[in-house]
Amino acid sequence: MLSFASDNHAGVHPHVLKMLTKVNEGFAPAYGGDVWTARARECFRREFGADASVFFTFTGSAANVLGLASVLSSFESVICADTAHLNVDECGAPEAWLGCKLLTVKCPDAKLTVQNISDQINFTDDVHKTQPKVISISQTTEYGTLYSATEIAELARFAHARGLLMHMDGARISNACAALGASLREITGDAGVDLLSLGGTKNGLLAAEAIVSFGPELRRALTYGQKQGLQLASKMRFISAQFLAFFEDELWLENARHANAMTHLLNESLSGIPEFQLTQKPQGNAIFARMPKAAIDQLQKEFLFYVWDTTGNQARPEIRLMTSFQTTPEMVAQLAKRVREVCVLTKG
Amino acid sequence: MLSFASDNHAGVHPHVLKMLTKVNEGFAPAYGGDVWTARARECFRREFGADASVFFTFTGSAANVLGLASVLSSFESVICADTAHLNVDECGAPEAWLGCKLLTVKCPDAKLTVQNISDQINFTDDVHKTQPKVISISQTTEYGTLYSATEIAELARFAHARGLLMHMDGARISNACAALGASLREITGDAGVDLLSLGGTKNGLLAAEAIVSFGPELRRALTYGQKQGLQLASKMRFISAQFLAFFEDELWLENARHANAMTHLLNESLSGIPEFQLTQKPQGNAIFARMPKAAIDQLQKEFLFYVWDTTGNQARPEIRLMTSFQTTPEMVAQLAKRVREVCVLTKG
Amino acid sequence: MLSFASDNHAGVHPHVLKMLTKVNEGFAPAYGGDVWTARARECFRREFGADASVFFTFTGSAANVLGLASVLSSFESVICADTAHLNVDECGAPEAWLGCKLLTVKCPDAKLTVQNISDQINFTDDVHKTQPKVISISQTTEYGTLYSATEIAELARFAHARGLLMHMDGARISNACAALGASLREITGDAGVDLLSLGGTKNGLLAAEAIVSFGPELRRALTYGQKQGLQLASKMRFISAQFLAFFEDELWLENARHANAMTHLLNESLSGIPEFQLTQKPQGNAIFARMPKAAIDQLQKEFLFYVWDTTGNQARPEIRLMTSFQTTPEMVAQLAKRVREVCVLTKG
Amino acid sequence: MLSFASDNHAGVHPHVLKMLTKVNEGFAPAYGGDVWTARARECFRREFGADASVFFTFTGSAANVLGLASVLSSFESVICADTAHLNVDECGAPEAWLGCKLLTVKCPDAKLTVQNISDQINFTDDVHKTQPKVISISQTTEYGTLYSATEIAELARFAHARGLLMHMDGARISNACAALGASLREITGDAGVDLLSLGGTKNGLLAAEAIVSFGPELRRALTYGQKQGLQLASKMRFISAQFLAFFEDELWLENARHANAMTHLLNESLSGIPEFQLTQKPQGNAIFARMPKAAIDQLQKEFLFYVWDTTGNQARPEIRLMTSFQTTPEMVAQLAKRVREVCVLTKG
Repeated sequence: MLSFASDNHAGVHPHVLKMLTKVNEGFAPAYGGDVWTARARECFRREFGADASVFFTFTGSAANVLGLASVLSSFESVICADTAHLNVDECGAPEAWLGCKLLTVKCPDAKLTVQNISDQINFTDDVHKTQPKVISISQTTEYGTLYSATEIAELARFAHARGLLMHMDGARISNACAALGASLREITGDAGVDLLSLGGTKNGLLAAEAIVSFGPELRRALTYGQKQGLQLASKMRFISAQFLAFFEDELWLENARHANAMTHLLNESLSGIPEFQLTQKPQGNAIFARMPKAAIDQLQKEFLFYVWDTTGNQARPEIRLMTSFQTTPEMVAQLAKRVREVCVLTKG
Repeated sequence: MLSFASDNHAGVHPHVLKMLTKVNEGFAPAYGGDVWTARARECFRREFGADASVFFTFTGSAANVLGLASVLSSFESVICADTAHLNVDECGAPEAWLGCKLLTVKCPDAKLTVQNISDQINFTDDVHKTQPKVISISQTTEYGTLYSATEIAELARFAHARGLLMHMDGARISNACAALGASLREITGDAGVDLLSLGGTKNGLLAAEAIVSFGPELRRALTYGQKQGLQLASKMRFISAQFLAFFEDELWLENARHANAMTHLLNESLSGIPEFQLTQKPQGNAIFARMPKAAIDQLQKEFLFYVWDTTGNQARPEIRLMTSFQTTPEMVAQLAKRVREVCVLTKG
Repeated sequence: MLSFASDNHAGVHPHVLKMLTKVNEGFAPAYGGDVWTARARECFRREFGADASVFFTFTGSAANVLGLASVLSSFESVICADTAHLNVDECGAPEAWLGCKLLTVKCPDAKLTVQNISDQINFTDDVHKTQPKVISISQTTEYGTLYSATEIAELARFAHARGLLMHMDGARISNACAALGASLREITGDAGVDLLSLGGTKNGLLAAEAIVSFGPELRRALTYGQKQGLQLASKMRFISAQFLAFFEDELWLENARHANAMTHLLNESLSGIPEFQLTQKPQGNAIFARMPKAAIDQLQKEFLFYVWDTTGNQARPEIRLMTSFQTTPEMVAQLAKRVREVCVLTKG
Repeated sequence: MLSFASDNHAGVHPHVLKMLTKVNEGFAPAYGGDVWTARARECFRREFGADASVFFTFTGSAANVLGLASVLSSFESVICADTAHLNVDECGAPEAWLGCKLLTVKCPDAKLTVQNISDQINFTDDVHKTQPKVISISQTTEYGTLYSATEIAELARFAHARGLLMHMDGARISNACAALGASLREITGDAGVDLLSLGGTKNGLLAAEAIVSFGPELRRALTYGQKQGLQLASKMRFISAQFLAFFEDELWLENARHANAMTHLLNESLSGIPEFQLTQKPQGNAIFARMPKAAIDQLQKEFLFYVWDTTGNQARPEIRLMTSFQTTPEMVAQLAKRVREVCVLTKG
């Protein structure tokens, strides 16, 4: 069945498999002491600057949790959108690993702003309350929206002025760069981000994510945190290889551009269907929209995709349609055609 | 440089890479909802029985820690050898993740026995002490020694009689099976093991380990524990694929037999060198021995291997020589030749 | 300065000090092995039934956190009002000790209902979400409101039907009993509560709270949890003595009735002041109301009390006025007189 | 029954009860905002210097664990004697609350030295091992022995030279000061101690211990740690009052001198009994000795005391006899007489 459920329903890009085969020659020191890992780290420094440190993890949750662990005491807290993956999709791993509270902010488009943080978060120095230490944003957001470099910089200034750090969950940062026409660095370190979770898996890798810290301060904590956090690969060269493929010839950007383009195409193909109403502006590789329940039911027999929110209008639940490097224009056409048909059908 | 440092210096077995390519077709549900994962789980049930549950992790530390987490409260403790990987090589992950104390037992051959546990562990029901809940053994041990099925069963009876559970760190269980001529099940579930960490990576996989629980009781805790423990792969089919290759045509057993045979060959090739003295009986794929410091220094310029213990006789530190599925008779011959030469040389 | 800030601004009831002196004779076994502790436990069994277990703690946060710890795994979560002490006033101790997420429910009167839980909490069996395990209610609530025995029973039925447990933060349960004319047991164990934090300190004790569990299942976890949770008093007789005084001649009820009566008197004395508007119905020993900012500023120069909520109408912040066993009718009259005067003044 | 089991079998010194009554006047701000707490803190600064910060806890375990929590990350570890209270008598609270491993050192007299630490602890910068961060010593030790100021300073220099901190579990620091004729400051801050758990309860208080940190760096972590660690008393004045009594007219020193004198007297009274053999030199308020099993059995029918170690010579277990501020010369005489008698009896 064709899947528009998630970019992690896609497979591994062939270049990545090729690179795995390439590094599989002879013996290599374990735990990152090999030449391939050195080269992969060099790729990150090229993208993020010579001071950047990089630590690989197997999952995005691990990148988020262990990155944050390097800066937080248990009495400190993390400000994030209530829709953040950190808050809703990591089975409480942040609370369990960090022992920290998440302070969530309601924001309809899944984007934190100085305004909504100021309105909803208490910054008083009160021993009975956890003390905010990090602002964490998702780029792209879990609702397919985007922060501009300017918006990030504004949040970072606000954070730094209060002694807080700026964290970015960049599980889909490639899609953000592709959409904004920005380099990785421009929307992270250069905009004031202190800690980044860089996503690889959703953009064509097998299982590889990275924690990037800007500046050397966190290196010790992240070095031991990666190991204690159950993320230090023994045969590290095979994680590093994935990132070598990722950065070679800008595969990451090509993949992300393609995924975004497929979402753009899908969005255009679905325009003018009255029963299909966007709930968010599609800026990355996902479309959020409401459709009649009956149309959804029919469509789910033919395609994989998620009903995202069943609250609110139960007759017209919100769905998510997501594209990836593997989505083709033909698949998009096929889906768009059927959406149109089932919408007409269920209307009648 | 040739490596006898660790079986994780080896690469990935070609069959594994082939299987990764094979499962990389089209879209597949994430997080284990795919057909390849269903098949991989079926392989485990074939080996371990229909009641066995299996949960994949990326690292052996994760398999150990999350397996144990499913049965332990923080006031309970784990009895293990003081040489256990759990105790000395996981950067305190058990303490950090379980919040539990490890109660370590001194045992010269790295093997727990009813006797050494009874001599060294306090089982009193005292509110000031943590309460032992699990006995954890390593098979093969970190010193290349083995538990027979009978020895395991004896420990399990001792454990169960006191309301304790039996855990096995089977990072190298394949080597144990190969050496004992036993099936996986005979030395685990059938011998009274309740929880197993089954190692894949050290035996030819890329990054795949498994928690096996015997009986359905722990399924809920392990299901959520795997996710919260940062080990739930989104593109799970690529972890499962590794185990499909592992079990296909008994690759796991063939690899382990080869690694053991290379250790056997190396041991024979090194016999009769007075300066080279075994410290443990080599039963799996590792040799532990003491050599003159000068000989070691010279040898480390030519081969990768670890000085394992620098305490005791400083003039003759203990080294570890380890073989893997990738070790060849030629490599063994080359190492043995040089050991003999440097020993003679440093004697003169 | 007279204080209406909190019932913990009051001192210790003289009977309690007398009992401390009484038990201070000779030597006594430590950690609860003494006769006074046996008697205090007996008092609890008389109130709560023969099956009830009791564990003393020094603070209410400890009673909440350690009680919950005895039933929760880190992937499970606690449903509570967003106003719950557990959520807002324990500096993240629940997250830090339990590693669990709190799932908060908005409820204007600080009371959970089957309806507001059902509307706001997701009970799906999804590996990416923490699994609700406990419903925790505060009695009286942090906004001075009350649950009737019927309301508690309804929540408990809802909880138990889903395999959840019912927890009560009874920091001010004495005030609830006094207001409802109910026994301690009627609004706890008999109404389906599984775990209770019983408050002593706010009702005349020095530093003594209790975890009460109904049924023997949690005894082992609570026994070790109390010690590991840093709450096992070595000279336990002096904690137990406080509860002996608490239950002797129903001091707890007398104190609570007095505190409630003072709130009732204060509420009556403040009626008919247009600038003073209740925000909650005062059912226990606290009044929540909005007043003009200028009036508050003046009043805070003369009396201790909290501005509770500065959001919403900034010209008329919400204040809390709290009474205790130590509050006298004269103090109430003095406060009421000044409230009336400053309200008139600031209006002019 | 007369107790030589522990100094926590003693009651509360009458001066302490008097002070509790004294501070019990009217209302007082909660959580330490009261005048009595300000005065108690001033007492500590007088003893420990103007830069010292003090945080009160209810239990000694709490003082240890929360003090250490203010400086440790979970990948760091604590070096302590294997006999340390931290290791054997806190039910795993350090592991549970810090997530840290304790690295234990065998030392027959319960005292760490540069030598035994260097011999037994691995300081290598290896990502697979926890990183030592604190050296924790007990003063007096759990075996009634003492560190001189010089010995502490030597350990502190060793610690600081490696970037480690020096922690003292001073549950019985009063007894150490009394024995050494040293001020509190001379054997703590002045000797290089960075963090101190100062015991009050064992020396005549009801339930009051203190964390003292030298220098302002840890103030924020300890402030929030005390609250999150379930140790922030709401009616703090009654904890502070205990320390006011403690320091008034050097009650702490008088109590400790008395307890030590009683141990001295007991030791002298027991000299010349061949069946009663000291296992440690009694330097504080405890005697450790081996006696015939039959003699112990008889004696335990008449006096409370602990059999401390049942390993080793089972015919002659090791017992602990402990004195306190409440022990009288008459009690000592009574015990000594009976020890002599039962020893003679069991010999015959």
